[in-house]
Amino acid sequence: MSSNWGKHVKISVWGESHSESIGVVVDGLPAGEVIDWEELLAFMARRRSSGGGVDTPRQEADLPEIQSGLLNNVTCGTPICARIRNSNTQSKDYSLFREVARPSHADYSGYLRYDGYNDIRGGGHFSGRLTAPLVFAGGLARQILARKGIRIAAHIKQIGSITDAPFPTTELDQKLVEKLNHSFFPVLDEAKGEQMQAEIQRVRAEGDSVGGIVECAVLGVPGGYGDPLFDSVESQLSSLLFSIPAVKGVEFGDGFGLAALCGSQANDPFILQDGEIRTETNRNGGILGGITTGMPILFRCAFKPTPSISKEQRSINFRRREEVTLSIKGRHDPCIVRRAVPVVEAAAALTLLDLLLSSDKRWNLQ
Amino acid sequence: MSSNWGKHVKISVWGESHSESIGVVVDGLPAGEVIDWEELLAFMARRRSSGGGVDTPRQEADLPEIQSGLLNNVTCGTPICARIRNSNTQSKDYSLFREVARPSHADYSGYLRYDGYNDIRGGGHFSGRLTAPLVFAGGLARQILARKGIRIAAHIKQIGSITDAPFPTTELDQKLVEKLNHSFFPVLDEAKGEQMQAEIQRVRAEGDSVGGIVECAVLGVPGGYGDPLFDSVESQLSSLLFSIPAVKGVEFGDGFGLAALCGSQANDPFILQDGEIRTETNRNGGILGGITTGMPILFRCAFKPTPSISKEQRSINFRRREEVTLSIKGRHDPCIVRRAVPVVEAAAALTLLDLLLSSDKRWNLQ
Amino acid sequence: MSSNWGKHVKISVWGESHSESIGVVVDGLPAGEVIDWEELLAFMARRRSSGGGVDTPRQEADLPEIQSGLLNNVTCGTPICARIRNSNTQSKDYSLFREVARPSHADYSGYLRYDGYNDIRGGGHFSGRLTAPLVFAGGLARQILARKGIRIAAHIKQIGSITDAPFPTTELDQKLVEKLNHSFFPVLDEAKGEQMQAEIQRVRAEGDSVGGIVECAVLGVPGGYGDPLFDSVESQLSSLLFSIPAVKGVEFGDGFGLAALCGSQANDPFILQDGEIRTETNRNGGILGGITTGMPILFRCAFKPTPSISKEQRSINFRRREEVTLSIKGRHDPCIVRRAVPVVEAAAALTLLDLLLSSDKRWNLQ
Amino acid sequence: MSSNWGKHVKISVWGESHSESIGVVVDGLPAGEVIDWEELLAFMARRRSSGGGVDTPRQEADLPEIQSGLLNNVTCGTPICARIRNSNTQSKDYSLFREVARPSHADYSGYLRYDGYNDIRGGGHFSGRLTAPLVFAGGLARQILARKGIRIAAHIKQIGSITDAPFPTTELDQKLVEKLNHSFFPVLDEAKGEQMQAEIQRVRAEGDSVGGIVECAVLGVPGGYGDPLFDSVESQLSSLLFSIPAVKGVEFGDGFGLAALCGSQANDPFILQDGEIRTETNRNGGILGGITTGMPILFRCAFKPTPSISKEQRSINFRRREEVTLSIKGRHDPCIVRRAVPVVEAAAALTLLDLLLSSDKRWNLQ
Repeated sequence: MSSNWGKHVKISVWGESHSESIGVVVDGLPAGEVIDWEELLAFMARRRSSGGGVDTPRQEADLPEIQSGLLNNVTCGTPICARIRNSNTQSKDYSLFREVARPSHADYSGYLRYDGYNDIRGGGHFSGRLTAPLVFAGGLARQILARKGIRIAAHIKQIGSITDAPFPTTELDQKLVEKLNHSFFPVLDEAKGEQMQAEIQRVRAEGDSVGGIVECAVLGVPGGYGDPLFDSVESQLSSLLFSIPAVKGVEFGDGFGLAALCGSQANDPFILQDGEIRTETNRNGGILGGITTGMPILFRCAFKPTPSISKEQRSINFRRREEVTLSIKGRHDPCIVRRAVPVVEAAAALTLLDLLLSSDKRWNLQ
Repeated sequence: MSSNWGKHVKISVWGESHSESIGVVVDGLPAGEVIDWEELLAFMARRRSSGGGVDTPRQEADLPEIQSGLLNNVTCGTPICARIRNSNTQSKDYSLFREVARPSHADYSGYLRYDGYNDIRGGGHFSGRLTAPLVFAGGLARQILARKGIRIAAHIKQIGSITDAPFPTTELDQKLVEKLNHSFFPVLDEAKGEQMQAEIQRVRAEGDSVGGIVECAVLGVPGGYGDPLFDSVESQLSSLLFSIPAVKGVEFGDGFGLAALCGSQANDPFILQDGEIRTETNRNGGILGGITTGMPILFRCAFKPTPSISKEQRSINFRRREEVTLSIKGRHDPCIVRRAVPVVEAAAALTLLDLLLSSDKRWNLQ
Repeated sequence: MSSNWGKHVKISVWGESHSESIGVVVDGLPAGEVIDWEELLAFMARRRSSGGGVDTPRQEADLPEIQSGLLNNVTCGTPICARIRNSNTQSKDYSLFREVARPSHADYSGYLRYDGYNDIRGGGHFSGRLTAPLVFAGGLARQILARKGIRIAAHIKQIGSITDAPFPTTELDQKLVEKLNHSFFPVLDEAKGEQMQAEIQRVRAEGDSVGGIVECAVLGVPGGYGDPLFDSVESQLSSLLFSIPAVKGVEFGDGFGLAALCGSQANDPFILQDGEIRTETNRNGGILGGITTGMPILFRCAFKPTPSISKEQRSINFRRREEVTLSIKGRHDPCIVRRAVPVVEAAAALTLLDLLLSSDKRWNLQ
Repeated sequence: MSSNWGKHVKISVWGESHSESIGVVVDGLPAGEVIDWEELLAFMARRRSSGGGVDTPRQEADLPEIQSGLLNNVTCGTPICARIRNSNTQSKDYSLFREVARPSHADYSGYLRYDGYNDIRGGGHFSGRLTAPLVFAGGLARQILARKGIRIAAHIKQIGSITDAPFPTTELDQKLVEKLNHSFFPVLDEAKGEQMQAEIQRVRAEGDSVGGIVECAVLGVPGGYGDPLFDSVESQLSSLLFSIPAVKGVEFGDGFGLAALCGSQANDPFILQDGEIRTETNRNGGILGGITTGMPILFRCAFKPTPSISKEQRSINFRRREEVTLSIKGRHDPCIVRRAVPVVEAAAALTLLDLLLSSDKRWNLQ
């Protein structure tokens, strides 16, 4: 019951890290949408490992093979299925974890959940690889949204203790969006980006890993979408964002920072700007009462450090119920944040498209 | 499409702040569960205003009138409907907000969402009053969970810049749970609690408001529940938590704090404690790979300051498209956090019960 | 998990026959829809017992008391809650059925389902009374659909062995729709209607009951709505129709009659009629591949005879596991079909509105 | 929004008749279930064409290639994905139907639904081929149910005007179940089966087709599962059965036959049989109040004649809006009923497994 998501746009993800393939069925996209294949692959490539430096040495081509639902790169309106073969697998690395739990990994909780029957090779269904189909699906959604004037941009806000410059207060210009969308290591302040990459290399050299924060903006969403209570934009976005492995916090607008403020500081004054209703600040992240205001939707996701480290750690053998020490071999990312940026953008794209397609705001029969 | 929630335990909430009544239909509870009515009312009373001091002067009896589904305080297995009358309404206060948007309120986004047809009196369906039915439903869930050994406790972690002591590292003793569950202003450090209340009185005196953070622990949940990806425990909890008005951030375990750490600092070592598998620390908040580990589930919610303040603010008249200034009269909470504590607990109870009842871990025919 | 329905228009029904009230929360209706209250009550009145003749002597006012979601009879876009009090209850009639199962009633299966905790008075949640909230919700949907040119008409096709004239082959004129919509005993052939009513009176006199068939047409639905496979129009309609107590069969177009035909007889030839694409016959009931064709949607529901009869029957005491005989006292309908007509229409209205509001056929942002 | 189904067991089907592949993701199966691969393939083979006689000449190997979720034929508890390649495609046959509607096919309604963007080759997503993934998924469900003592058997009840013998009144013996489960043309009366096959060959020779009825029994389901109202067993079964292409009617127990009966004839008397509570007859098909009684679940599905016939028919060119005549070439089944039998069984298996896994009847934490 874990791998289905969505109200209108429904996605069903399958696969384990070392199974025959991973993939996704995307149902509910409108018919007649042209998909730019090159752009889609470029978007997916941002999630791939560069094979060294700040990423894992494991590289996968991650080429989505379309099984259905697209004819000449145009959506048929029927389910689009994409399959991504698992090729570069080294299953021998993982036999130990059938009984020894890697700290902060899902070995032990997965063992309990599936009574030991789950495929643990490469992390199985828990693997970060499962985000590749999500990025494929989000890549479709992203293109359909762009046609309605909705753009998504994200940057690496923090790695360890190094923080990037903040997003401009209320709006992002198109140039910045383009730059972030095509950057290997998307930051606003390039000098900070250099420091972050150096920090990642440093923890890697120590056999350690490091966490970080991704900040994302969705631009061009009209006001009046979403709902109060259970279908608030925050509820819908957070639900998908927390399904990204390693995400442990989500906040909108000023988020946790709002706890320390007074209303007179935190409220966003409404203003007229060139005849348009805007807010002067955007501490609520473009959402009031669960509903979009027309301002950019702003949110941040906290990623924990990759749990796989080669430094020695204490743990247990949960089958024998013995304490052990272990040092994790294998190929791992010292920091997942860079590769997670397009995953966050994909989650935002899917949620927004689903939310807009589910709206009853203006309903007309053909 | 906003007011239905749940996979197995389904709740459907209705009402506006000044409508005939508000209420909830709770479907999917097992038959034969005894409900302690006194305990339920005591739980709901924690959400009520004390009528002064740190709360709004508006007081409602908030007595749930059972319409169906309970016979002699035992669940029938059919939908339980509870209706709460709206009595203490002063509708004249609100006519202005049909055209003037209160900053950081849902007046403008609600106007766009419903094309101006929504009931704006008292905040309408956006009102914090709608959390009363949620607390009723959560109060039922809470009692059913307690019978399985699952307890929920929360405290006020922060008001403005004042912070309470942290929860004990890995486990809460039963006494502390009881104390928090029956406290008017639940904190771990009573001195800090006094300061917080003084701070709330101070901002009220200034016609201002203040935000805060609620921290919650769910104890006794066995390991192995929840799912990877879209039904992660984090996804399910956050989805309901973000439906609580004013929540702008949710984090699990060390949450945003994990971004600054290395894996060697952030990983929770597994240990054997009296023969039980535990973790030494609990920075992951009892959830790994979206699945419970058997450790306490820990999370925090950030609440923004109540947007209604009597201090003068800039805004717009969105019908006439004119800039205006306004000062909000009426009866409002200077800080919603105290009354939000049982709402957070209710959301946790409902999510956990839903998650446990939806599990296929052990399925047996009768 | 029984009492929630819908994808976009969501309804949550509560109540037992003898509980404080029964009712429904209807969520997902568009804002700004004017509700004609008189028409709504007239529609609900068609489901009420006339208090004698062909109906049960138990009469309920069945006045829906609006709790929320309507302001001056205009939808707010938020959940509409209607509560219907149970007044005319005679609970003493039912104590026997805590242990003796009435044949073809839900006494025994309900006992197993709810481990004996369900409220059995008056049939509890299984009672035909629960269709009153459904008719309320359908009455709202019906008015919203009518504004888009979609009309629903139904007649009593069969009672016992007496059958009404068939619907006109491909289209119903507006006069006939109006006549059926306002008829106490809606039939096409009034002489047959007289015979049917005489038959019902006859079985009543014998302490018996009789079954029948309702035939329904939905007119004005444009082609191209619905989906292949799991969201076929047939799937969606049948799912709600089979939730009406006593319905044991549903067929579309010529339904079971198609089994005996050859393709050359059963296929509906497409034709041009005044420039419009139509079919000459409508044996597929306006649905091909699960999707509407623009022809009237036609279906029939078979109702079993009311199981409550005063004739002596054999049964068991399921607590003592003894065979018994019983003769059912109390106030019952000798035939439920007449009162079921608006229930069928309500189910059709709700399904169609839900289906149309869920469509992604033409999606435009405001 | 058409290709996702299920509450607990979720299936997502993809594919067009001539796309790269068709397939299914099955989520929510319990972990640790052993799948007998040979039995699964034998079950799927019953849906395949025999390549002549009573079936279409188009033959597909229909070998499911497992992509994920199974390790050594044991369920992991994660999504099982099976992919079936489309090999034997002759796409040239279909170009005409981009503008000329085959009567009683989905060409025209599909054109409206998808604005002409759907893949029409071989019927596209509307093709009967899409039932192959359904049978795969049902084949898994069937084996899991069998382990709980639940068996499913179906026979061809009617072809044209020829009818098979009825199912035994209240129970089927194990031998009969086995025989039907392994029969090429499953009937109770072999002589009738011969006549039916002769009838199919006769209509084929005439370039025509013929309809029929499948009758199905689910044995061994305990009493007390399902729910009143919207989750009635009838609602859930019919919803999936009506997603099988060509099904136009579904009835339970005596179904439409009940309309002609009196209550005294239609009610099923409860009896004690070897100490077990049973009913003497089973006119309600094992379901009362939407809930299982412990008696066999009995239902029938009416299939319309295959719409593809080579006899000349009248139709329209819907792009040019002209009336035309056409005679359909290509490879088609003269009667789909034989191959539909395992599809009906698959739908029953999936529904029952979903229903049982969703039950809260007995919930226990591990």
